[in-house]
Amino acid sequence: MNRNIETFIGCDGDYDYAQIVLFGAPFDSTTSFRPGARFGSSAIRHESFGLETYSPYQDKDLTDIKVFDCGDLELCFGSAEAALKDIGEKAGEILFDGKTPFLIGGEHLVTLGAVRAVAERYPNLHIIHFDAHADLRDDYLGAQLSHACVMRRCHELTGDGRIHQFCIRSGDKAEFTFAKAHTDMHKFGFEGLKELAEKLAEEHTPVYLTVDLDCLDPALFCGTGTPEAGGVSFTELLNAILTVSKTNIVGADVNELAPMLDASGASTAAACKIVREMLLAIYK
Amino acid sequence: MNRNIETFIGCDGDYDYAQIVLFGAPFDSTTSFRPGARFGSSAIRHESFGLETYSPYQDKDLTDIKVFDCGDLELCFGSAEAALKDIGEKAGEILFDGKTPFLIGGEHLVTLGAVRAVAERYPNLHIIHFDAHADLRDDYLGAQLSHACVMRRCHELTGDGRIHQFCIRSGDKAEFTFAKAHTDMHKFGFEGLKELAEKLAEEHTPVYLTVDLDCLDPALFCGTGTPEAGGVSFTELLNAILTVSKTNIVGADVNELAPMLDASGASTAAACKIVREMLLAIYK
Amino acid sequence: MNRNIETFIGCDGDYDYAQIVLFGAPFDSTTSFRPGARFGSSAIRHESFGLETYSPYQDKDLTDIKVFDCGDLELCFGSAEAALKDIGEKAGEILFDGKTPFLIGGEHLVTLGAVRAVAERYPNLHIIHFDAHADLRDDYLGAQLSHACVMRRCHELTGDGRIHQFCIRSGDKAEFTFAKAHTDMHKFGFEGLKELAEKLAEEHTPVYLTVDLDCLDPALFCGTGTPEAGGVSFTELLNAILTVSKTNIVGADVNELAPMLDASGASTAAACKIVREMLLAIYK
Amino acid sequence: MNRNIETFIGCDGDYDYAQIVLFGAPFDSTTSFRPGARFGSSAIRHESFGLETYSPYQDKDLTDIKVFDCGDLELCFGSAEAALKDIGEKAGEILFDGKTPFLIGGEHLVTLGAVRAVAERYPNLHIIHFDAHADLRDDYLGAQLSHACVMRRCHELTGDGRIHQFCIRSGDKAEFTFAKAHTDMHKFGFEGLKELAEKLAEEHTPVYLTVDLDCLDPALFCGTGTPEAGGVSFTELLNAILTVSKTNIVGADVNELAPMLDASGASTAAACKIVREMLLAIYK
Amino acid sequence: MNRNIETFIGCDGDYDYAQIVLFGAPFDSTTSFRPGARFGSSAIRHESFGLETYSPYQDKDLTDIKVFDCGDLELCFGSAEAALKDIGEKAGEILFDGKTPFLIGGEHLVTLGAVRAVAERYPNLHIIHFDAHADLRDDYLGAQLSHACVMRRCHELTGDGRIHQFCIRSGDKAEFTFAKAHTDMHKFGFEGLKELAEKLAEEHTPVYLTVDLDCLDPALFCGTGTPEAGGVSFTELLNAILTVSKTNIVGADVNELAPMLDASGASTAAACKIVREMLLAIYK
Amino acid sequence: MNRNIETFIGCDGDYDYAQIVLFGAPFDSTTSFRPGARFGSSAIRHESFGLETYSPYQDKDLTDIKVFDCGDLELCFGSAEAALKDIGEKAGEILFDGKTPFLIGGEHLVTLGAVRAVAERYPNLHIIHFDAHADLRDDYLGAQLSHACVMRRCHELTGDGRIHQFCIRSGDKAEFTFAKAHTDMHKFGFEGLKELAEKLAEEHTPVYLTVDLDCLDPALFCGTGTPEAGGVSFTELLNAILTVSKTNIVGADVNELAPMLDASGASTAAACKIVREMLLAIYK
Repeated sequence: MNRNIETFIGCDGDYDYAQIVLFGAPFDSTTSFRPGARFGSSAIRHESFGLETYSPYQDKDLTDIKVFDCGDLELCFGSAEAALKDIGEKAGEILFDGKTPFLIGGEHLVTLGAVRAVAERYPNLHIIHFDAHADLRDDYLGAQLSHACVMRRCHELTGDGRIHQFCIRSGDKAEFTFAKAHTDMHKFGFEGLKELAEKLAEEHTPVYLTVDLDCLDPALFCGTGTPEAGGVSFTELLNAILTVSKTNIVGADVNELAPMLDASGASTAAACKIVREMLLAIYK
Repeated sequence: MNRNIETFIGCDGDYDYAQIVLFGAPFDSTTSFRPGARFGSSAIRHESFGLETYSPYQDKDLTDIKVFDCGDLELCFGSAEAALKDIGEKAGEILFDGKTPFLIGGEHLVTLGAVRAVAERYPNLHIIHFDAHADLRDDYLGAQLSHACVMRRCHELTGDGRIHQFCIRSGDKAEFTFAKAHTDMHKFGFEGLKELAEKLAEEHTPVYLTVDLDCLDPALFCGTGTPEAGGVSFTELLNAILTVSKTNIVGADVNELAPMLDASGASTAAACKIVREMLLAIYK
Repeated sequence: MNRNIETFIGCDGDYDYAQIVLFGAPFDSTTSFRPGARFGSSAIRHESFGLETYSPYQDKDLTDIKVFDCGDLELCFGSAEAALKDIGEKAGEILFDGKTPFLIGGEHLVTLGAVRAVAERYPNLHIIHFDAHADLRDDYLGAQLSHACVMRRCHELTGDGRIHQFCIRSGDKAEFTFAKAHTDMHKFGFEGLKELAEKLAEEHTPVYLTVDLDCLDPALFCGTGTPEAGGVSFTELLNAILTVSKTNIVGADVNELAPMLDASGASTAAACKIVREMLLAIYK
Repeated sequence: MNRNIETFIGCDGDYDYAQIVLFGAPFDSTTSFRPGARFGSSAIRHESFGLETYSPYQDKDLTDIKVFDCGDLELCFGSAEAALKDIGEKAGEILFDGKTPFLIGGEHLVTLGAVRAVAERYPNLHIIHFDAHADLRDDYLGAQLSHACVMRRCHELTGDGRIHQFCIRSGDKAEFTFAKAHTDMHKFGFEGLKELAEKLAEEHTPVYLTVDLDCLDPALFCGTGTPEAGGVSFTELLNAILTVSKTNIVGADVNELAPMLDASGASTAAACKIVREMLLAIYK
Repeated sequence: MNRNIETFIGCDGDYDYAQIVLFGAPFDSTTSFRPGARFGSSAIRHESFGLETYSPYQDKDLTDIKVFDCGDLELCFGSAEAALKDIGEKAGEILFDGKTPFLIGGEHLVTLGAVRAVAERYPNLHIIHFDAHADLRDDYLGAQLSHACVMRRCHELTGDGRIHQFCIRSGDKAEFTFAKAHTDMHKFGFEGLKELAEKLAEEHTPVYLTVDLDCLDPALFCGTGTPEAGGVSFTELLNAILTVSKTNIVGADVNELAPMLDASGASTAAACKIVREMLLAIYK
Repeated sequence: MNRNIETFIGCDGDYDYAQIVLFGAPFDSTTSFRPGARFGSSAIRHESFGLETYSPYQDKDLTDIKVFDCGDLELCFGSAEAALKDIGEKAGEILFDGKTPFLIGGEHLVTLGAVRAVAERYPNLHIIHFDAHADLRDDYLGAQLSHACVMRRCHELTGDGRIHQFCIRSGDKAEFTFAKAHTDMHKFGFEGLKELAEKLAEEHTPVYLTVDLDCLDPALFCGTGTPEAGGVSFTELLNAILTVSKTNIVGADVNELAPMLDASGASTAAACKIVREMLLAIYK
């Protein structure tokens, strides 16, 4: 008799043959509004059984690709640095084995753990960032390791012009000023993404794709802790992901699903579908 | 003093004079994900009092047409065949009396009960099918009478080319392959519907319209048990219904509202409005 | 040590220097479907701390303008006339001090209290009305002071052609007939708003803007008590507000948020953003 | 084919032969905290189908007694006096026909409508009152017709010593002072009820029993709008009802179920059981 | 890197050395009121990580005993017989290997599958049954395999006097009559349990313990689909389980947790604790 | 016109004359299960308007005592040490001014901040601790500043025999072993509290009372993040508080209300009542 194994649907291949490795980072200690993103990765894995493995969008099937899901890390609540260290080590291990890390959060700060590892391996890394929030504060209520600062910390790793932000519609004035000088920010939607993706693809630039699910309009995606009206739709996000997938993606994450806020399960189901489509799109 | 009578708003005419007869099929035993569609018909009837009888879309009023609501059937949970038999008999009785059956589910399998009766009366029946799911499996976990197989069973009654599917965005690979050979499937939206409706109207072909409410995007309609991101909007669905109403509709259903998942009542209210608009549009 | 002061975010200036004065009217006694709008103003104030003071839409910041928030009135449940009297007096006091009253409901009937005061000061007042419902009944179940009659009562103050209704998609037949004769009704959306705003701006006509949040599609804004499918989106509403802001707005309100129906908080957050954008847009 | 009739389970007898007549009063306009009791009577009727007609507590069956359910009154929201008038007339009609009125609220104020009719017929009426709140204010925010004043208004009809209050654990100081002088108040629980019931039964005094469901501990009965910790349990309430049923009950009501607050349905199910047990216990 | 394994907390031993084997039966097709018990076993496993492995009630620790959790069966919705066959086969396999089957439902009908296998191995089997409902109907709306008939079907396997029912407070009159003649029914609570357990323990009678969680008062345990007010408390149930554990338990189950109705998670957490305590108490 | 001031009901006196000072600590970064206690203090303040100022339990009124509510601290999420420092400073300031600090959490870790300040002022401090959990771990997943370690950290300040724990029913084995050697632990309920309180009162020992609301049974109090079945009732807790109030209380807190889990508001209302009763009982 076998033990009970639970992975994202269709992601039950062997580690040795896997090209992409899923791992969860159930951490949300720095969330400043409604917490609960810690349950995101687990809910996505659990609810993925309501999904088909086949995508009519891409005419591809998860059963035809090789993905390994090693479950959630056990992270220390209350210590952002310790959590980021564990995330970075796991991402580093996956990269060392020649595979692509695919992180599921958790709050957006977890991205920093993965980006540290990926940026070390790919010094010329670009980051494509879908989010309602700029996340460019230098500190938030005294903390530099905060979800509200994560892209600022990433900028310290990549330098100017390497972070491409889309869907941004919230931040304090200083963040928008910072963006003008240091990042490539596109407000409200995905304008300019196609041109960017083509350019990066042509140059075969290594790209890290980070999807904060609150880029979606909270009217359409209520399962997130910091709702910002005025976002994009599922179809727009799906198309954006397919656009980005033409680039050389060397790492990716999806974060900020807060299942406690998703009473009907519709947001969690949408997040599962985003993960399926990203896996199928990124797989080479 | 009168007993308490509860019907869909404005549908309190005499049976003898009615042209359309509403009946509910509170059954969801084969639902494989989140159950609760059994409460759909009752919730639609109950919440319809929050609706006006007048439609500004069609400039028509339910008080001007003749619809009879005979309430919900009492169906046996756990036995799909018994439930379908009861549904078929009720639909047959309505048809025999020269009226149009209008079924409110329940899960989508209930459609098969009504289609059996309608197809017997109208051998050249066509089915127009709005749904997120293809519902074309031959069996699901061993069961041939399952919500996931309902259009496959209908196909056995109608034969090739008579089932017109719209909004489909989920299924396993085999279902999409089956559709290419045997049904008229339109993925994702309503493309091609106008042309189809015009052709069927011209030929005065008898049409059964089955609306699985999960054709709507679950971000917009959370009260359904198998959410599939990427669907249509209420306005698109409403326009599609008005388009189809030009054909010779001889039976119709609306199904898969799961009110337990609709905490705010917005999905139930939308379903009520769909029913009102369908009644007004179908009425001759 | 200071007492706990809670205002809408960024609205903590001095009364004497304020140009706009926020006040809440927690009243919903005449609501005929799902009640709870009484908690709207308080929830908007409370949840506004999840918002930034800076608007990337208008590139303006609440910290740069002068708004005073005096909290909620204490209104008598069960007596519409008493409640309206208190609302009217508060609005009158604000107008007397040369400031703009900004009312947060509560059910839509509260608008009548403010409009009485504003119309007294500005006899040539026009009203711009965003709503799913016509609100033009003469009485509702015998009551003339009902949310369903509020624009009819306002019409008695302004006369013909001075009430401009947008997004209307529900009412009984008589209301639509009344509108044809007496108001300027635009069904379903914002068609015609731009032209109207330009004309009113040119003539410097005093305008009262009343926003019933159920003009938004309830699929996108579930936190309201009388959901009417088929409404506008947040972005459409935001643009409409920016369009209207070019006119001479002398009073405004936002009403019908029912937070008990907004389990995830997404509707409340959207309402907060509407208030922020209206304050920034109206401020001269 | 029959119209859809919906009554409380087992209460489908003829009016002419009925001994008890159920009617609902969907009114909550004076509720000062969380509204929604307007939906109480309808939810009780609707959910009663989850109940058996047989009571193992009393070894009696609803199918063996004669109760008629005439549904809900259509009451005017926003006007307490109009609503009370309609309730009183209906109760009067039932009494005139020699039957016992059994009212389901709605907020507690509805009791006044029924008590007016019952007290007119039975001048020596006593009232037994189960409630968390004293409801003895002379006015509440200026209104004399308020749920918070209902027993004070009843006292004006019955005079001193005729109102017997149990489970009371909330009120302002003045209400407790008033109770000492004018009513028979038993704080927190049912102490003294047995002796009272025996005395009233012996003297064959006509008794009106009013059950505000918030006498139950809100930890055990979350579906009520004004939760007051520290109440009684279902079993204690059931036993109290059985105790009171030995008296000559000439009218009764159950009120303050607010189904919107009862996400799981457990409170509504308990309320249904209370109604079943009261009907079986009161029936002679 | 390891795959993601998810078991009930502390139940991660080897199958070969295990004394108890946990398995889930996610089936609820015959549920006649609110469905959702299908998610019970999975939720219990998932939420058990919020529990400690140590019990201060028994001063025992799950890490000191040997339990194997093989996850959920994949059962066919809509076919009760097929589901029962699969459950029976799994229970038979566990019994054949000399281990104790511990089933987690699902609806109560699943018990029949396990009891068939256990009764075959232990012909003198007694069943101890904790439930709000008698479950003694011969059929329910035509179906003999229904949750409402499960103990009647078990009675056909064990014969008279071998089924000991506790906490029963709901059923139709015929079920209570049947119980008087054929089962050992104790209404409302656990009276008589201690004496029974002592007698069965003395005689070393093989005992199957089936716990329908709705024996708990729904006011205290809202996460169940058929709430029956007037049940026992967690502590009473816990003590009853400890009492029964002195007998020779050869099979056991816990069923009818419906997590969709347990918004706060408190019922699921209680169910987890019941499972922990049962495992620790049954282990020899 | 006045700004909007929001305090706990009846706590609007002047700071200078206040004897007790309320302050909130909205922090829950180390919560390891369901987060959300950060919203506890704000919800208690906000919902307290549903409460009367008068207590029939103590026949006292909040309007007769002097309490000052200075609102919530603005604490840094993600840094436990920084948050504790801010809490300690505020408590110290209140103590320095000769007043009693009354802290509302937040997660239980916040207690450590207040206890540090109180223990510094009262070196012979005893702590009375009501909780489901022992909170005696030395570290939790590597963190020493965790809600699961808070009483262990307090023990480092007070030494052996000064911490009196009641209602404890969860912990790992080591915590119970630690308690036997170092604290005065009473499992499951309040046994022994009366004797302890009398002894401490007699000796006039300074006492800090910390109430983790999860000492209540989660079946009765679902609004808490770490539900542990088998707790005490509201009335038991109320009586325990009145018992402790005879001692010399020099500081107190109430924590772990997680309002997001309290859909009906019943838990929040109970927490408000606990705060009212504690204020009235502690006031000298």
